[in-house]
Amino acid sequence: MQKGKASILFKQPPYITAAASVAGKKEGEGPLGTLFDVVEQDGMLGEKNWEAAESRMQKEAAELAIQKAHLKPQDIRYLFAGDLLGQLIATSFGLMELEIPLFGLYGACSTFGEAISLGSMTVAAGYAERTLALASSHFATAEKQFRFPLGYGNQRAYSATWTATGAGAVVIQSESDSGAMAKITGITTGKVVDFGLKDSTNMGAAMAPAAFHTIWQHFQDFERDEKEYDKIITGDLGTIGQTILLDLLKKEGYDLISTHMDCGIELFDSKTQDTHAGGSGCGCSAITLCSYILPKLKDGTWKRVLFVPTGALHSTVSYNEGQSVPGIAHGVVLEHI
Amino acid sequence: MQKGKASILFKQPPYITAAASVAGKKEGEGPLGTLFDVVEQDGMLGEKNWEAAESRMQKEAAELAIQKAHLKPQDIRYLFAGDLLGQLIATSFGLMELEIPLFGLYGACSTFGEAISLGSMTVAAGYAERTLALASSHFATAEKQFRFPLGYGNQRAYSATWTATGAGAVVIQSESDSGAMAKITGITTGKVVDFGLKDSTNMGAAMAPAAFHTIWQHFQDFERDEKEYDKIITGDLGTIGQTILLDLLKKEGYDLISTHMDCGIELFDSKTQDTHAGGSGCGCSAITLCSYILPKLKDGTWKRVLFVPTGALHSTVSYNEGQSVPGIAHGVVLEHI
Repeated sequence: MQKGKASILFKQPPYITAAASVAGKKEGEGPLGTLFDVVEQDGMLGEKNWEAAESRMQKEAAELAIQKAHLKPQDIRYLFAGDLLGQLIATSFGLMELEIPLFGLYGACSTFGEAISLGSMTVAAGYAERTLALASSHFATAEKQFRFPLGYGNQRAYSATWTATGAGAVVIQSESDSGAMAKITGITTGKVVDFGLKDSTNMGAAMAPAAFHTIWQHFQDFERDEKEYDKIITGDLGTIGQTILLDLLKKEGYDLISTHMDCGIELFDSKTQDTHAGGSGCGCSAITLCSYILPKLKDGTWKRVLFVPTGALHSTVSYNEGQSVPGIAHGVVLEHI
Repeated sequence: MQKGKASILFKQPPYITAAASVAGKKEGEGPLGTLFDVVEQDGMLGEKNWEAAESRMQKEAAELAIQKAHLKPQDIRYLFAGDLLGQLIATSFGLMELEIPLFGLYGACSTFGEAISLGSMTVAAGYAERTLALASSHFATAEKQFRFPLGYGNQRAYSATWTATGAGAVVIQSESDSGAMAKITGITTGKVVDFGLKDSTNMGAAMAPAAFHTIWQHFQDFERDEKEYDKIITGDLGTIGQTILLDLLKKEGYDLISTHMDCGIELFDSKTQDTHAGGSGCGCSAITLCSYILPKLKDGTWKRVLFVPTGALHSTVSYNEGQSVPGIAHGVVLEHI
């Protein structure tokens, strides 16, 4: 099971039996808009504040995924979940009513990769028959926490990405009927990688070295290269991060130009949606996986993909104290059944 | 292995082979002061700011635990770690140089329980031969983030606890020589529990219902009661939280008066150290486990304890928006070898 330096190969791969995506209005107007299970037209979701709105998105995504798997909350043994907000308040308040034991996770925008990794490790080890992995982000809660008050109307750099409003959830099970979407055959867990970047409006550049490291490590651990994947999919590098990633991999002899895809580039039409370098946030890779990637694995369009959500470990506190923005990325191998 | 509703019983219990505690000056002056591996006399640890100081404590604790286990950083396969700060900056910056794959965790002050749970699950499943579980808190970083600037000199309520400055780390291994400190025989994972408490200066009361729920669930899942434990040890309920916990358990027929211990009550002498209801923070239970509890398990004074770090999912954002403070608690069964 232990594979290479940072990877696990599952002897009995667990299945993703159901997935749910709840997206915001702007995400619903983007290229993937018709694929989401729910597109919320109100950024507040009828709640009193944005944080409560993000919590509600998490709850909706969790309940919908559980329902699609023909289960009830009490059938899920453990939750693996997180969000971008301090003290994970979207998660704590969003998932409380489910009354399921919770492992709270923080990996910045890589959190969905971390959640699927731990959720599948738990199922594959026989500790649980069913787990739920979940992550969310919300444009307004993230801007408020990390950048400027929305009312201030600051100009955004062209290198900046747009934090997606969305929550994605997958049910992971040890057994599956014929309706499962994909199987999880392995994982490669990332370390913190810091190239010393200090531009808080260029998260793609901050995360690209971490994505590079995890993909490179994955190739070493599994003794594979890009040719053995239909797609290698990062979370939210955007256009600038993508260029850096492809350059870094090329220097090591891997040509991913035709294989690489980035959820942040897929989620929005940057020309008409004013999103600049692309989409970002835990929700970006989460809703793209649940609405777009998993169906293509289910119908066999893709046989094997490496899904690598990417996180910038950005904090206003450390940033204002002069620190750089390190990155982390967690890889998950998903295969057609 | 799957046990009851929220627990795991390990068929092959992993071992804690080494533990390290790095404490602050005030903690060093408390009742456990002589037991810590390191007592830092400077709250800044020679760094430029408190956050960097907390990162450095994490690094010191990690390196010392690895060294005590006669290992090198590259021998550790995965890190399971977290702290109280937004975006886990103490962890990201503290552990970066170790270059070990990292699962970032957030469970408020229950994080050390979450880290040991996942670290032992990973080892017991054969995914890793060795993992490191770690958590930290720092009085100054926590006050700055959650309450008032230290320079403001606000008065603290008698129900308030004092966030401990400290980092604790344990090495978890599948095999052990005769020097191991304890074995981890099972875990019970907590859910988010909210009794609607809205007093941010009384975290003990906010966490007691979560501690109660996890201990109660543990008794059901393992078909045991308090008589089968030498100690049942919560993380940082303090004196007020302890009273509530004992009351809640008594109503269910469990009398823990002679069995219960709370790390927050042990860590400081509240009469002379002005800590009011007790100590708190991830570091409180972490350094108490590493310096005081594990040695008592190693020498056989205690044969079996239930260690239950407790977390208040408190956020200034949700609190200022009128939300309550929910709690969570994660239980770990530790036994003499």
